[in-house]
Amino acid sequence: MPREFKLIERIRRGTRTDHRVRLGIGDDAAVLRPPAGKDLLVTTDMLVEGRHFTSKTSAYLIGRKAMAVNLSDIAAMGGEPAHAVVSVGLPAGRTGAFATGLYRGLREMAARFGVNIVGGDTNACERVVVNVALLGEVAQGRAWTRAGAKVGDHVFVTGALGGSYRSGKHLKFTPRLEEARWLRRHARVHAMMDLSDGLASDLRRMAQESKVGFLIGEESVPVAKGARGVKAALGDGEDFELLFTVSARESLALRERFHEIGRVVPSKEGIRLWTRKGKKVPIRGGYEHFA
Amino acid sequence: MPREFKLIERIRRGTRTDHRVRLGIGDDAAVLRPPAGKDLLVTTDMLVEGRHFTSKTSAYLIGRKAMAVNLSDIAAMGGEPAHAVVSVGLPAGRTGAFATGLYRGLREMAARFGVNIVGGDTNACERVVVNVALLGEVAQGRAWTRAGAKVGDHVFVTGALGGSYRSGKHLKFTPRLEEARWLRRHARVHAMMDLSDGLASDLRRMAQESKVGFLIGEESVPVAKGARGVKAALGDGEDFELLFTVSARESLALRERFHEIGRVVPSKEGIRLWTRKGKKVPIRGGYEHFA
Repeated sequence: MPREFKLIERIRRGTRTDHRVRLGIGDDAAVLRPPAGKDLLVTTDMLVEGRHFTSKTSAYLIGRKAMAVNLSDIAAMGGEPAHAVVSVGLPAGRTGAFATGLYRGLREMAARFGVNIVGGDTNACERVVVNVALLGEVAQGRAWTRAGAKVGDHVFVTGALGGSYRSGKHLKFTPRLEEARWLRRHARVHAMMDLSDGLASDLRRMAQESKVGFLIGEESVPVAKGARGVKAALGDGEDFELLFTVSARESLALRERFHEIGRVVPSKEGIRLWTRKGKKVPIRGGYEHFA
Repeated sequence: MPREFKLIERIRRGTRTDHRVRLGIGDDAAVLRPPAGKDLLVTTDMLVEGRHFTSKTSAYLIGRKAMAVNLSDIAAMGGEPAHAVVSVGLPAGRTGAFATGLYRGLREMAARFGVNIVGGDTNACERVVVNVALLGEVAQGRAWTRAGAKVGDHVFVTGALGGSYRSGKHLKFTPRLEEARWLRRHARVHAMMDLSDGLASDLRRMAQESKVGFLIGEESVPVAKGARGVKAALGDGEDFELLFTVSARESLALRERFHEIGRVVPSKEGIRLWTRKGKKVPIRGGYEHFA
């Protein structure tokens, strides 16, 4: 029996699925019962050795991260994750214990947030590559997007930013699904996204989609322990915290739980940092994928 | 603006979506209207440079193949493809014309079969890697699987096998969606799968899932022009034809359109080839991913 069979068999045996899955791993495609009266969410993220992890990162943490970055995307839409398919490229020498560790990380993260792993593809590849595509669901017409921020909104993040590579947070973070669930129940979120490329970069994306500007308070940005100041918090990336805006009226109730970092301003004011010295300076930088 | 933005912007501008898409490329996840009263199909396949194509393969053909192999999976389930998300890893030097060609191949194949490209991820990677996850739909409870073959069934394939790498068919094949549509209307398919790893390997998978054996006629296997005989037809792989079984009663009407290659036999008889000399010999071999 070819070894690829054995890998798939192993995942299949170790993977439990719930009633929403008619047919899981092992056929040409999985067969799922779509959620009645809901919208379907779909996202995908690819992790590549040398970029999102090193050749020394444990297989378990790679698997964990590959699932977690996708869970973070579903959280940012206000949805609940449901089903994942996983593609893996592995060097010939890493198909044994390494593959086991990888799937343990994937499965553990999936199980923790109620995700069925319903399909996969395994290939020989010089470097380790892991791709997850994740399906989720959300109440009809209720997904949070990047496009809803309104001038006057208050801007929040769910946690401290910066230094994620150095601290290892980029491998070990908890996707902010609990926080998103709380917000679904207690607030009317206008716009949301997850912070993957760094606050500076991601603010620019939200500004573009919402056609607004931002004024961010330098003293308000929560800087992670070990991160090199506000500059790191703005530019390092891979924080996987949620960035969102709510009306001024709603903002009061959220200050206890989340970090308020600034305001939504008219588009023509751009994206600026209100420094400790009282100056307003344009925010530049952020992570570039092909930098 | 980081270059990754531009790539995504380019796909977004070039990509039309239909009414089933509430929100396409450009947010943390796509938002889709799930098909009412249908089952959802999901599959994923990863293509890796050096394995599924060479460093000299045109970007267009790589993109085309990445979409086509997934379309083939949905065809094999008896479904209609609907939405795709695409992840790409590209070396720093191949983000310009190469990326454009890649997306042209992906888009063309997607458009031809009514697929919306609703999301993507772009990364720097030493070698070219392309992953597609494809969603489809099928009438509730009506997906074709590998598990339904019955002793006495007749076994068919949709086209000639073997030599796919040498002929370039593995890059240029048409996924057999038209044939699957025809079968949905005119036949009761018991079991189906697409031939990706070679007839020998894939028969073994269907045998395992259906708990049956196969007797295949050496003279009945259609060998592609330029392929090195039946051995190549059994072992080369990447044919992307459909393999399926129907009852003896239904088989007559299908002989005009498809190639009948053998019969389903009891599991204990194994998988054998009825040779030209009248001997029955076990079929071995087939493509091994980590061979």
